[in-house]
Amino acid sequence: MSSITIFGSGNMGGAIAGIAQAGNNDVQTLGKADAATPVQGDIVVLAVPYPEVAGIIEARREQLAGKVIVDITNPVNFETFDGLTVPADSSAAAVIAEALPEAKVVKAFNTTFGGTLAAKEVGPLPTTVLIAGDDADAKATVAEFVEAGGLTVIDAGALKRARELEALGFLQITLAAGEKVSWNGGFGVVR
Amino acid sequence: MSSITIFGSGNMGGAIAGIAQAGNNDVQTLGKADAATPVQGDIVVLAVPYPEVAGIIEARREQLAGKVIVDITNPVNFETFDGLTVPADSSAAAVIAEALPEAKVVKAFNTTFGGTLAAKEVGPLPTTVLIAGDDADAKATVAEFVEAGGLTVIDAGALKRARELEALGFLQITLAAGEKVSWNGGFGVVR
Repeated sequence: MSSITIFGSGNMGGAIAGIAQAGNNDVQTLGKADAATPVQGDIVVLAVPYPEVAGIIEARREQLAGKVIVDITNPVNFETFDGLTVPADSSAAAVIAEALPEAKVVKAFNTTFGGTLAAKEVGPLPTTVLIAGDDADAKATVAEFVEAGGLTVIDAGALKRARELEALGFLQITLAAGEKVSWNGGFGVVR
Repeated sequence: MSSITIFGSGNMGGAIAGIAQAGNNDVQTLGKADAATPVQGDIVVLAVPYPEVAGIIEARREQLAGKVIVDITNPVNFETFDGLTVPADSSAAAVIAEALPEAKVVKAFNTTFGGTLAAKEVGPLPTTVLIAGDDADAKATVAEFVEAGGLTVIDAGALKRARELEALGFLQITLAAGEKVSWNGGFGVVR
């Protein structure tokens, strides 16, 4: 059992809160109105749009030190919808890890739409959460809470792999926006 | 019906030849021993490892002008297995398109393992071939032959999207190499 703080209560934040509650974890959800509320969780999920992450880091830097930070973002350029806003050889997760050197950043949930997290299935397949990170203990902690919530986890490797996970997430968003796949579909993992 | 030349007769080349034959296309397969044999197909599939593509282009530049070139490569750095050998803001398909300005390059097949192409299914899902390219007619020609062979096609957009397709292909290879998924599994598409 873990204590988990989730920033954001949208489609993704809500689905992740459901997963965390299903595993009997202590769950705290924080929104913009909670600026004065301290972070209680040992795991902190940034379930906000990427442009809002920098503000949370700026305001909560001391509280986030030592935490396991779960970055779920897809830093899509929503003006052009034709690329990502992070450097081509980097990732949102790498940018966040650089901004929070005392935290342990794990990329997760960015390759699964909220609907497939809530349903625990993508079409005929169980929903698989791909994770990446440089700290094995932090990844194990995240995997434990996700699996306790009834989902499958695959460790995709080091935090460097967040670049490919974000490419996958971006591609999936473009396919759904272009009505090539459903927002309840997308990429499923076949073992 | 199209005439299709396939460079390479490995796992992928063999599976693609099977797809082309199932659709009653004229199929020519060329290997290293066929250096003096002219390319007959209107569609040319480069089913060779990425490092061999440059030599084919160099030797066949005039024959390839005007053709629909299908790039299936994943330009994985096989020394480090930790990245791609093309620039981070580019793709193998973009490099090939630049080298063959008179051809119409379509990215295809790089996100599907040979086994899932041959079986026409990935686990419980029909195998979906993701394609990308800047020439709509060329993409339609490729989609027609793939669909005639019994597979599903999704148009992922402009050739620029080859970057994400190659990230997906690379990620999938790392997962299979790490025994996280089977070489007959990987990413399936749920509509």
